[in-house]
Amino acid sequence: MSFELTKGLLDRIRGDVADGRDSSVEALLSELHPADVAAILDRLNEDEARYIYRLLEPETAAEVILELDEDRREGLLESLTSKEIAEDLLEHIDSDDAADVMSELPVEKQREVISHMDDEEQKEDIRELLTYEEGTAGALMAKEVVKVQADRNVTQAIFEMRQQAQEVEHVYTIYVVDQDDRFVGLLPLKDILFSAESTRTPVRDICQTDISTITPDESAEDAIAMMKKYDMAVLPVVDEDGKLLGRITFDDVMDVMTEEAEEDYQLASGISEDVDVRDKPWVQIRARLPWLLIGIAGGILSSRIISMYEVDLRIDPTMAFFMPLIAATGGNVGVQSSAIVVQGLASGDLQNVRLGPRLWKESKVAVMNALICGGLIFLVNFLLDQSQALTYTVSVALFTVIITAAFFGTLTPLVMDKLKVDPALATGPFVTTLNDIFGLLTYFTVGHLMYGHFHG
Amino acid sequence: MSFELTKGLLDRIRGDVADGRDSSVEALLSELHPADVAAILDRLNEDEARYIYRLLEPETAAEVILELDEDRREGLLESLTSKEIAEDLLEHIDSDDAADVMSELPVEKQREVISHMDDEEQKEDIRELLTYEEGTAGALMAKEVVKVQADRNVTQAIFEMRQQAQEVEHVYTIYVVDQDDRFVGLLPLKDILFSAESTRTPVRDICQTDISTITPDESAEDAIAMMKKYDMAVLPVVDEDGKLLGRITFDDVMDVMTEEAEEDYQLASGISEDVDVRDKPWVQIRARLPWLLIGIAGGILSSRIISMYEVDLRIDPTMAFFMPLIAATGGNVGVQSSAIVVQGLASGDLQNVRLGPRLWKESKVAVMNALICGGLIFLVNFLLDQSQALTYTVSVALFTVIITAAFFGTLTPLVMDKLKVDPALATGPFVTTLNDIFGLLTYFTVGHLMYGHFHG
Repeated sequence: MSFELTKGLLDRIRGDVADGRDSSVEALLSELHPADVAAILDRLNEDEARYIYRLLEPETAAEVILELDEDRREGLLESLTSKEIAEDLLEHIDSDDAADVMSELPVEKQREVISHMDDEEQKEDIRELLTYEEGTAGALMAKEVVKVQADRNVTQAIFEMRQQAQEVEHVYTIYVVDQDDRFVGLLPLKDILFSAESTRTPVRDICQTDISTITPDESAEDAIAMMKKYDMAVLPVVDEDGKLLGRITFDDVMDVMTEEAEEDYQLASGISEDVDVRDKPWVQIRARLPWLLIGIAGGILSSRIISMYEVDLRIDPTMAFFMPLIAATGGNVGVQSSAIVVQGLASGDLQNVRLGPRLWKESKVAVMNALICGGLIFLVNFLLDQSQALTYTVSVALFTVIITAAFFGTLTPLVMDKLKVDPALATGPFVTTLNDIFGLLTYFTVGHLMYGHFHG
Repeated sequence: MSFELTKGLLDRIRGDVADGRDSSVEALLSELHPADVAAILDRLNEDEARYIYRLLEPETAAEVILELDEDRREGLLESLTSKEIAEDLLEHIDSDDAADVMSELPVEKQREVISHMDDEEQKEDIRELLTYEEGTAGALMAKEVVKVQADRNVTQAIFEMRQQAQEVEHVYTIYVVDQDDRFVGLLPLKDILFSAESTRTPVRDICQTDISTITPDESAEDAIAMMKKYDMAVLPVVDEDGKLLGRITFDDVMDVMTEEAEEDYQLASGISEDVDVRDKPWVQIRARLPWLLIGIAGGILSSRIISMYEVDLRIDPTMAFFMPLIAATGGNVGVQSSAIVVQGLASGDLQNVRLGPRLWKESKVAVMNALICGGLIFLVNFLLDQSQALTYTVSVALFTVIITAAFFGTLTPLVMDKLKVDPALATGPFVTTLNDIFGLLTYFTVGHLMYGHFHG
């Protein structure tokens, strides 16, 4: 029982739009969830999407616009007046979503939109939320909470909550505060409905008080970690004095988790901004070309290094045979070591681990891998009847490269993290390129020495 | 207001354990959330962890064991008798967690544990849940739902719910079913508490019926996608006849999302099983060595290919200078192209996209990148005063390699997906190795022709 977006359905909607069969489109879309309507609009062209958007009820339209792809949403927002955005959109959605929409508008339009808003509370909330920087807990927060004073009894609380609950869509829990609006605890609806307590009991006595909270300037990552660790559907946000500011909900956190995983994966793959298969070619080129140029700069540097050993290559051109093996293995080892550190940093496993023991452990893995790989390639070259000099050179260089790549691979993301650079960059082309260069330098240095040793 | 695991705290606990100051440990831990106690046990050694585990209340102990690292949990479970696992652990936790714990035990011990269980319902639930394969929605499902017949009125419903709600920890919503236990809809607690409807209204008339459901044999990924799309805190699981089997909750889904993101990232980094910084060296070697060996096999194959062009290398050893540039760029382009497809597959963006248009779009990006990179390296080599043959060779080979790597990079994950292999593998060392080899083959073929042209 789930919606599937088929080509047939898309074609039918396209046909209806082209022929102006509004009622047919309306009938079709009215049965769908706003997220599914959004998925349809994402696949249509700009004009079709605008046409259909105009046919939607304001409440549905507001939900739909939130679920659209960012590019598509931008296009649609451009076609709306500031008054329409203020009255038809922002007043129908939660404060956090409203602030997100606002932040996508040009500053000039933001001001216009605000001036058209009638709902003073929503206006204030949006203004506040826009002050929190991206990546902070504040930027994930919504202002809508159903709250009740700690000294009210259960019956009074239910009465008060009824007034507030209209404007809050999902309510799982009540926020209990003291007279100064400081957060006291959470009262899950379950406990109100099912508790054996008398309706005269003050909510202070039945609410859960051992609840973790976060301040708006802490990082979004900390908020996510906390909610995951304690299986929280909502996380209260408070200021330094403990005053309740708002809440973060599981659905917002899920979206951010997906974004962050995608970002890490893209960084590791050498893609520098958030692109997807539907982005236009030039957007993709902009995201990808810089990394290719880094690789090419590395390649040019490599060529300079190798040229220093041109004499050795002239003596034995077979040295060139194993350059790819050395460079590739250095790159692979480096990425592995970095990836383990990056994940350790993300999960908090590396929180209390000191650098020394970490490097010591990694070096045990590296020496073992280096012995096996170096030994293997020695055997292969021996069986392939390569020259003694080359056989020793390749094995010794491979051994050295595996150990140094593991060392740099471990160190780089740790240093990046200290410098507040995203450590996931370490698993991308930049560090691989450095490992390539370093590997070749090692190879030719070892080769130069070996050939000197064997041939005089 | 969140717990931080400091070295000081760990040392203090270690000291208390060593000196047998049980009451001090108990006092310390009783204030902490089970997830925090688990984090502490994860950092201690096996004996210390067991010692502390024995000091915990059964209910807390059960929660703690669920939050432990898998390795640590395995160790602790080994030290418990089947009877202890059955009575102290499994009867205190949700059915899905119980099934997860069971699935980590050897089959023999599973049978023993089941035979010691007194709670017939839990026993049945665990048996059922163990039949669902990993990666299915069924494997994420818990059997605990608070359900009510659709023809009951609100007052009757509340009464019935009170009976059931004791044993279910988080209740956000009530499951409404018909006489045959078929799923009818959801009734959020908010609607019961705050609805203006009379308490005589049958719940059928006030519950939400446009709720997506999933069957247990659909994939876990589909379940996650559905919950994310529709912002659902719970997803009802039904069989083919629509009978309610259980539910999936947001917290389980968050855990799986993290695991999947880590798995993709590890595959892309050339790590084949789930390892983290705390795993023993030999576990890490087992996860990493196979990928290094693939890279080395690729390197040996490369060396064979290059050796076929030994004559050309003897004529002009400077050809070797640009091997790293060609191989690295081929690898980088391939990974970028694959990563974009992998993310498109994961997000569903590629659902209705056909192969032809996808390749056409990617080829526009590739040609543009190839022209820029090829042109750039031409200019650089021209300025560096390299030979005409080499200058043309490097540029033409680079141009060709960028286009073919983009082509294979796009195709490989699509083919893997069709073959039911995880497409994230495409961004790992295996495909990079293939791209290296292919790049070198192109380079030397072009070089051979060019040198023939210029010198021959």
